[in-house]
Amino acid sequence: MAKVITARSEDYSKWYGDIVTNANMAEHSAVRGCMVIKPHGFAIWEKMRDQLDKMFKDTGHVNAYFPLFIPKSFLSREAEHVEGFAKECAVVTHHRLMSDPNGKGLIVDPEAKLEEELIVRPTSETIIWDTYKNWINSYRDLPLLINQWANVVRWEMRTRMFLRTTEFLWQEGHTAHATREEAVEEAKQMQKVYAQFAEEWMAMPVIQGSKTVNERFAGAEETWTIEALMQDGKALQAGTSHFLAQNFAKAFDVKFLNENNKEEYVWATSWGVSTRLVGGLIMTHSDDDGLVLPPKLAPTQVVIVPIPKPKVEIDEVAEKIMKELRAKGVSVKYDTDKKKRPGFKFAEHELHGVPVRLGIGMRDIENGQVEVARRDTKEKTSQPLEGISSYIVDLLDDIQNNLFNRAVQFRTEHTTSVDNFDDFKNVLEEKSGFISAHWDGSTETELKIKELTKASARCIPNDFEEEEGKCVLTGKPSKGRILFAKAY
Amino acid sequence: MAKVITARSEDYSKWYGDIVTNANMAEHSAVRGCMVIKPHGFAIWEKMRDQLDKMFKDTGHVNAYFPLFIPKSFLSREAEHVEGFAKECAVVTHHRLMSDPNGKGLIVDPEAKLEEELIVRPTSETIIWDTYKNWINSYRDLPLLINQWANVVRWEMRTRMFLRTTEFLWQEGHTAHATREEAVEEAKQMQKVYAQFAEEWMAMPVIQGSKTVNERFAGAEETWTIEALMQDGKALQAGTSHFLAQNFAKAFDVKFLNENNKEEYVWATSWGVSTRLVGGLIMTHSDDDGLVLPPKLAPTQVVIVPIPKPKVEIDEVAEKIMKELRAKGVSVKYDTDKKKRPGFKFAEHELHGVPVRLGIGMRDIENGQVEVARRDTKEKTSQPLEGISSYIVDLLDDIQNNLFNRAVQFRTEHTTSVDNFDDFKNVLEEKSGFISAHWDGSTETELKIKELTKASARCIPNDFEEEEGKCVLTGKPSKGRILFAKAY
Repeated sequence: MAKVITARSEDYSKWYGDIVTNANMAEHSAVRGCMVIKPHGFAIWEKMRDQLDKMFKDTGHVNAYFPLFIPKSFLSREAEHVEGFAKECAVVTHHRLMSDPNGKGLIVDPEAKLEEELIVRPTSETIIWDTYKNWINSYRDLPLLINQWANVVRWEMRTRMFLRTTEFLWQEGHTAHATREEAVEEAKQMQKVYAQFAEEWMAMPVIQGSKTVNERFAGAEETWTIEALMQDGKALQAGTSHFLAQNFAKAFDVKFLNENNKEEYVWATSWGVSTRLVGGLIMTHSDDDGLVLPPKLAPTQVVIVPIPKPKVEIDEVAEKIMKELRAKGVSVKYDTDKKKRPGFKFAEHELHGVPVRLGIGMRDIENGQVEVARRDTKEKTSQPLEGISSYIVDLLDDIQNNLFNRAVQFRTEHTTSVDNFDDFKNVLEEKSGFISAHWDGSTETELKIKELTKASARCIPNDFEEEEGKCVLTGKPSKGRILFAKAY
Repeated sequence: MAKVITARSEDYSKWYGDIVTNANMAEHSAVRGCMVIKPHGFAIWEKMRDQLDKMFKDTGHVNAYFPLFIPKSFLSREAEHVEGFAKECAVVTHHRLMSDPNGKGLIVDPEAKLEEELIVRPTSETIIWDTYKNWINSYRDLPLLINQWANVVRWEMRTRMFLRTTEFLWQEGHTAHATREEAVEEAKQMQKVYAQFAEEWMAMPVIQGSKTVNERFAGAEETWTIEALMQDGKALQAGTSHFLAQNFAKAFDVKFLNENNKEEYVWATSWGVSTRLVGGLIMTHSDDDGLVLPPKLAPTQVVIVPIPKPKVEIDEVAEKIMKELRAKGVSVKYDTDKKKRPGFKFAEHELHGVPVRLGIGMRDIENGQVEVARRDTKEKTSQPLEGISSYIVDLLDDIQNNLFNRAVQFRTEHTTSVDNFDDFKNVLEEKSGFISAHWDGSTETELKIKELTKASARCIPNDFEEEEGKCVLTGKPSKGRILFAKAY
């Protein structure tokens, strides 16, 4: 039988860890806070990356690659930026090891101290804007629409696989524009791209909104976000897109000659999503039997299990189905392992989240049918072999939609409007989820709410409606509701 | 006009730098020895990566991702390995910065010193074998066939863009096997995969061989290599595949129960190619007008230039050609920039190595033809518009083959058998290239030859023929010829 997974109702956090470990997604490494992304987890990340990369290219972006290291002095150039990142930096100070003259083993060679320390990039605005300085002279060089896929390091104190790790994989877009308006448009566009990816590919509904001043990216004038809701009622910031105004252009002295031959600072955006999305995917759909994957991101979409084991007649039927499915662009595997019984295989494929499982025995073949089990609802039906591949293609679509609708329903049920602080606290404790509430707009109140309830301001929704009201905490006037939640 | 490129005959090294910079491939960064890979260079690397990734998956490998950092103590576990890498390591010693209490700017926070220093991976054998220890228990867990795409850092003293940089991008395969024979087979297989990629995709002929003891990877029992010849007669080690025997299994105590329930150490291989291949690609084919790209790796295979500028009739013809070409899987662009004259565009596309350029003017359309210029030979012909897309598909194949054949011919002309040391030195100085010579098999002689001539032993070719002879340097008996060359 498959490895045992703790039930969500028993211990949600342990459930998550069990899924990550047992479904071959990731594990802790020997290096504090860093994970090993195992083959199945990496295959899912690859599918995400390929689709996002396509969407970036379709919106006019190209990829490039900038150095892993950032000179220490670069970080200090933008005041808020350094404030945000200086406390969690991995610092390279030496470039050589030597044998310990007083014993065995290796020590850092004191002669090989760097003149200026290098920071392992926590994000690349500084090194990239230092580079853009040489690439941008005139309005003809703009816009510059560049993305990079990279690893970054932030020395986090509390880590959790995929959701928050010291090293993580991500993409970071860094664009340069001639006008404020164009940069704002770009940042908003990327929020939409992220939302589309989350909803259409991950089947994970997201709220699109902007961050409060307190929650903005260090160095941004505006941060747009997509916020998802996990099954335990906590929110997950799944992607952010920043309008950086001219902050980095000023810090790195990046100017251009506009069409009127006048010098101006360049306008910037940056935007990123990371392997954190894999954590969000797990927490949105999976159940107590293991991973549940939306078909569009499942490395294997269909698995065929011979019952009780491979046999020429079964092999032939399986081969035919596989050929038909592959011609339709469906990824399918035939599990011919003779050392495992069907029940064991069923549990394993459930654990790994394969969306559709076909069981084929001799009696099925005689009856011209096949057993079809869908992972999302765990429903099993017998379907005619005739036309089975078209049936499966439709079924995969249906599963994709069902997962999305199920998650939307969960979110709807876990989004509550409250009008006073007692309700705020009660809903948060008893029901959790998003809380829509009036707030007086001050950082002080936002921090006080967080201190009292652990709920943070998730976003001011893009579809924010003006509505007169009173702040749930202070009773001061408010112009509309924003979303709060406990968050990862 | 396009930027001026130094002629190869004048200064080969400067020519290379000019191409890299002017063709938008890469540039030096603010961090010593690290380059910025610019969009055009990265697009070529992406095409290489995608094809290699496919070939790895077709041979049964899966991707995963291991930490960027390696605990210092891990490096010391394998004696030869540490010897090979300790002297060129970027060392992380602290995890936080703070404001300088004695002034402005940032300093490393002395309170945030790591208990054990972390090394930025120069290669990942150690951290991966530490991980494999938990993944491998029985012969049923083997083979383990894993690859990772990653950045690595080696603190090189002399760097050159793509060919040798402090940080570079690569893939590293790390496999684990139950028997010596299977591991050796795997390592040899990957040498073949690399050779096939180099020859069929890069159009870069390579010699397959094994390294001398002195040139082996630090920790390997055998290193297989593919060696290419650049246009200046210097060799480039383009990819290596290592049989690591049980060295890392012993260093990290990785054992398995074999089919007879007996404990054994696991057998290992590792193999890698890097962004160095981009340098090899440039140096194999390019000329004094810029980059020359084999069609299979060109981000844009065909460019259409309207002469003298876009016009409805020309646009229509161009659109039709583009549609037909795209349907055939050819990547094509229509250069409608009105600010540049055709001559300028021609030079630019030549600089960027676009394999085929079509020029279309009104007179061409009247005559039912189009001007076709191929980048490799710079030949221009008029071709009938009728059937042009099929003509171009064939032409792209022809260019791919021509580049390969031209490089093979160059290599043939620059491979010389010599039988005494005077000839060895003369050929090296006057003609350069590969030198096939008898050698007594000792590291001492190999190093002496290198000291006297700067030529190193490139490889013992896979098709090594036994032949009685005398070492060119010492006159001692030799059993056959191996290849020497000056190398990058």
